[in-house]
Amino acid sequence: MEPIYNFSAGPAGLPKPVMKQAQAELIDWNGLGTSVMEISHRSKEFIEVANQAEQDLRDLLNVPSNYKVLFCQGGARAQFAAVPMNLLGESNTADYVDAGYWAESAVVEAVKYCEPNVINARTEKDGKTAVVPANQWKISENAAYVHFCPNETIDGIEINDLPVTDKPIVADMSSNILSRKIDVSKYGVIYAGAQKNIGPAGIAIVIVRDDLLELANQALPSILSYKVQAEKDSMFNTPPTFSWYLSGLVFKWLKEQGGVEAIEAVNKAKAELLYGYIDASPFYRNNVHPDNRSRMNVPFQLAKPELDATFLELAEAKGLKSLKGHRAVGGMRASIYNALPLEGVQALVEFMKDFEQANA
Amino acid sequence: MEPIYNFSAGPAGLPKPVMKQAQAELIDWNGLGTSVMEISHRSKEFIEVANQAEQDLRDLLNVPSNYKVLFCQGGARAQFAAVPMNLLGESNTADYVDAGYWAESAVVEAVKYCEPNVINARTEKDGKTAVVPANQWKISENAAYVHFCPNETIDGIEINDLPVTDKPIVADMSSNILSRKIDVSKYGVIYAGAQKNIGPAGIAIVIVRDDLLELANQALPSILSYKVQAEKDSMFNTPPTFSWYLSGLVFKWLKEQGGVEAIEAVNKAKAELLYGYIDASPFYRNNVHPDNRSRMNVPFQLAKPELDATFLELAEAKGLKSLKGHRAVGGMRASIYNALPLEGVQALVEFMKDFEQANA
Repeated sequence: MEPIYNFSAGPAGLPKPVMKQAQAELIDWNGLGTSVMEISHRSKEFIEVANQAEQDLRDLLNVPSNYKVLFCQGGARAQFAAVPMNLLGESNTADYVDAGYWAESAVVEAVKYCEPNVINARTEKDGKTAVVPANQWKISENAAYVHFCPNETIDGIEINDLPVTDKPIVADMSSNILSRKIDVSKYGVIYAGAQKNIGPAGIAIVIVRDDLLELANQALPSILSYKVQAEKDSMFNTPPTFSWYLSGLVFKWLKEQGGVEAIEAVNKAKAELLYGYIDASPFYRNNVHPDNRSRMNVPFQLAKPELDATFLELAEAKGLKSLKGHRAVGGMRASIYNALPLEGVQALVEFMKDFEQANA
Repeated sequence: MEPIYNFSAGPAGLPKPVMKQAQAELIDWNGLGTSVMEISHRSKEFIEVANQAEQDLRDLLNVPSNYKVLFCQGGARAQFAAVPMNLLGESNTADYVDAGYWAESAVVEAVKYCEPNVINARTEKDGKTAVVPANQWKISENAAYVHFCPNETIDGIEINDLPVTDKPIVADMSSNILSRKIDVSKYGVIYAGAQKNIGPAGIAIVIVRDDLLELANQALPSILSYKVQAEKDSMFNTPPTFSWYLSGLVFKWLKEQGGVEAIEAVNKAKAELLYGYIDASPFYRNNVHPDNRSRMNVPFQLAKPELDATFLELAEAKGLKSLKGHRAVGGMRASIYNALPLEGVQALVEFMKDFEQANA
């Protein structure tokens, strides 16, 4: 059988060695005779798992010591509410940069708690979808923070520059965290649902500068409070222990790959190969300007959209899974997160070539 | 090697056949060549898992059709905030029956949103911890709902009667859901963190009468909104798919055991065996009145507390795991949820006898 490559946008494929280890020790972990998910989150064995995962993530992202790392629930959607409830302080507004589907979704939730100032960063360049450069975003004077989403999974765009401001910068990095180097010290809060580059769905990471912990709204549900979660070491409630453990295995795997810098080089190679082929072919098209193309999510269309179903069916049969585009966009989408190896993109490009030859 | 029995209070042991199945199909589920946790929550394969889990839970608890079943995140702690935010409506108060640690914790969160009327149901009977009978709880006229926790994991008490009221009854059943027959139609909302009788930590069940969906506070975070979650089939955000799948396997296993009625008989036998031995022995003691003893969590003390550490060490060596009492109470605690078989309690009692003989 041919190897299977999983291009799912999320929940996404996890590194194969991680899944194999998880399987091997699923019913007898650490010699305990039970699964890691069947022991107390307060046992010394689990506390060790939790601490090690945090330390590995800190190492990978070089998180400064004045930042807390929280393991939360509810994904990025919960953070859409948590961010204003935790960070508004006395202010009634915050800046929300809108460059795609997820940035816009954050605004829909934020209006419950403030009057967000929406900075429209959507634009076109050379007839392609693009993002207004960050140094042209007009930051409001009274904004409590500036929120943006540096990678849009549905639109297939990525933003590589940062707001120019001394306000806390808040970034929804659900779909590109750990895929490229970042300077955490430039951010107030970074959050990310796990199900793309970290682990299984059901856990989310929040990295928050500790001076921001004091701003929270009093009526904030404790479960969404950065301060409460920081004080309780992310164990205010029983945490999703198995997801935490699996995320820890992914962090360890990533370290073994050489860390973020090394995986960034692979991600770059993967993206260049795929976009390069698409651009060279008259049969496939990607509608995002090269300046803003996502390295993680590559939407593309066929010149003959009536062949979409056939393309997907044949790809599936070749072990190239979950290439269907998001229902809001149609066409195809290849999500090529950290766990998807270069060989997966090579196999996809080979398949695309064959399909083009047979159908152009 | 002797079999291992896991008495953890939560995250607790899961049924062995469930864990074996999960292990067997962890990296190749349903012939897809990937794990169930690596596919989209919107794929037809996962939707089937989700729907089947809901249907099995409905069958097990005989949930009437005018109730929604939601699969949420954040455990019972998130529900401590969600309940008032969803159910207060125009009212500024709700009744909170306080009979133990968890009931009290719900009040601590509720004060953010209303002025809870706390009904103190803690009492003593024959020198033992007991609960005031429910027909003596004074329900306030203007309460939006009546909240109680029918099983207290730390105190080891269980409440077997219901508030006498026409207000919506809200029950935190985290630690006794599916362990005994209940009449869902008598409740407004039932909620439960999964990590005792349902599945792994990181998912929670909410069963809510559909007329209550309209009462929600406007500033409620969408992630905590029963109405939003009901409208989105619990997929407002990416749900914890693996935990959902595992919970589904537990529901299927429970059906195979004969359902709630059959497991209740086993649970009764387990509790009678353990309490019976404790009561007959001068060496062990349980401080809860028989009317209110929990069938799920059995705290007990040694006549010689200086032997606690030895007891735990020898028990552990015999494969009797996680018997240490909660730090708030000390002593021992045997949590004997659905997944812990009668043989586990038999082995525990045998061990307790031997220990008594050697140390009395």
